[in-house]
Amino acid sequence: MKETTTRKAVVLLSGGVDSTTTLAIARNEGFEAYALTFRYGQRHTCEIDAARETARYIGVARHVILDIDLRSFGGSALTDDIEVPKGRGLTDIAADIPVTYVPARNTIFLSFALAFAETLGAQDIYIGVNALDYSGYPDCRPEYIAAFERMANLATKAGVEGRSFRIHAPLIAMTKAEIIRTGVRLGVDYSLTTTCYDPTDDGKACGRCDACLLRLEGFRQAGIEDPVPYACEG
Amino acid sequence: MKETTTRKAVVLLSGGVDSTTTLAIARNEGFEAYALTFRYGQRHTCEIDAARETARYIGVARHVILDIDLRSFGGSALTDDIEVPKGRGLTDIAADIPVTYVPARNTIFLSFALAFAETLGAQDIYIGVNALDYSGYPDCRPEYIAAFERMANLATKAGVEGRSFRIHAPLIAMTKAEIIRTGVRLGVDYSLTTTCYDPTDDGKACGRCDACLLRLEGFRQAGIEDPVPYACEG
Repeated sequence: MKETTTRKAVVLLSGGVDSTTTLAIARNEGFEAYALTFRYGQRHTCEIDAARETARYIGVARHVILDIDLRSFGGSALTDDIEVPKGRGLTDIAADIPVTYVPARNTIFLSFALAFAETLGAQDIYIGVNALDYSGYPDCRPEYIAAFERMANLATKAGVEGRSFRIHAPLIAMTKAEIIRTGVRLGVDYSLTTTCYDPTDDGKACGRCDACLLRLEGFRQAGIEDPVPYACEG
Repeated sequence: MKETTTRKAVVLLSGGVDSTTTLAIARNEGFEAYALTFRYGQRHTCEIDAARETARYIGVARHVILDIDLRSFGGSALTDDIEVPKGRGLTDIAADIPVTYVPARNTIFLSFALAFAETLGAQDIYIGVNALDYSGYPDCRPEYIAAFERMANLATKAGVEGRSFRIHAPLIAMTKAEIIRTGVRLGVDYSLTTTCYDPTDDGKACGRCDACLLRLEGFRQAGIEDPVPYACEG
């Protein structure tokens, strides 16, 4: 990786493949990274541990873990008791707005990132959204990111004073395989990441939820073996 | 007040004059109100108590109080230990971006309101921002509200499926006197509201911070006596 400069960037980090790769890209682009992770009533705290480990491995100036209570509103399999779908075909996954959709989640995450960036005097925010594999999430599309950026520059003292914010979504047009190849090239250790919506009690990925299926397909297409352990595959 | 219908609206409620008047306006426009209040490391929890009392008095279907930790980022007199300015002239107050500015605060609040609205199946969100008295807050301007609304409709399943969100900012062009007169006409009991940035230990408003000065001037211009007790005036 290149030497860091004093340019600061806030990077949203969940501990999964996409956000970890995004952190590696931000570092490679010369930013001093300030990672921001949310504890938002996910059913699995292993995501937080993964974020902590990947942040340490890739190197960040600071890692803030914020508690936010999205359970007060409900509305998603990731925070409620709705059943996580298993064993779906990849075309079904791509076609729907998934049941794992959390209302306005990326908007909430980016809003906190904006507050953090303004406090730090940073003008750059990185988010690992991806429009191809998850076409079902409205807040993963380029037009959404552009609209957030425009709003952010009207919302803040920094924006008003001419220090514009930029929302970087470097993965937005990549396939999962391209994301993984990029990460491997930048030295990401994917054994530290976690993706599964419904891991087993001994911490293995289920291998059958939408997130596992997309991850496994990505590694297959990249021609790289996924280093995390699975309870079953496919 | 008119009879409520089944149309639901989320109303951001701080317990101050503006948000309380906004709640009364939403109810008067026929909405079933879902109030949303944040505990965000303000120095004074009396704001939360005021929000609870005004919500009960005006009538809401549900009142959600969410904890969010803006102190992790710092950057404002309302959450840090920066001195609250006292005894400034009204022209000074209007000219600056105030030290009490919290980075991206309204963006964070509206993002949670959006998540709550989408979960409820509501399409309407009310916020009591006001562009005239507080020209210093960038996130109180009409162009900011319009940009947030546009982003919200790209961010969400509801927006994508054609059930557009509307961000109502009914106070945006009103003077403080007009706001108070409107509230009094709609039956608001302003003795339940709280405004002061720096109240005394026995719960009196200081009468000298920017918020008190604007409130007192508003009541003066409306020709109505402010029912809350002050430690001193002006």
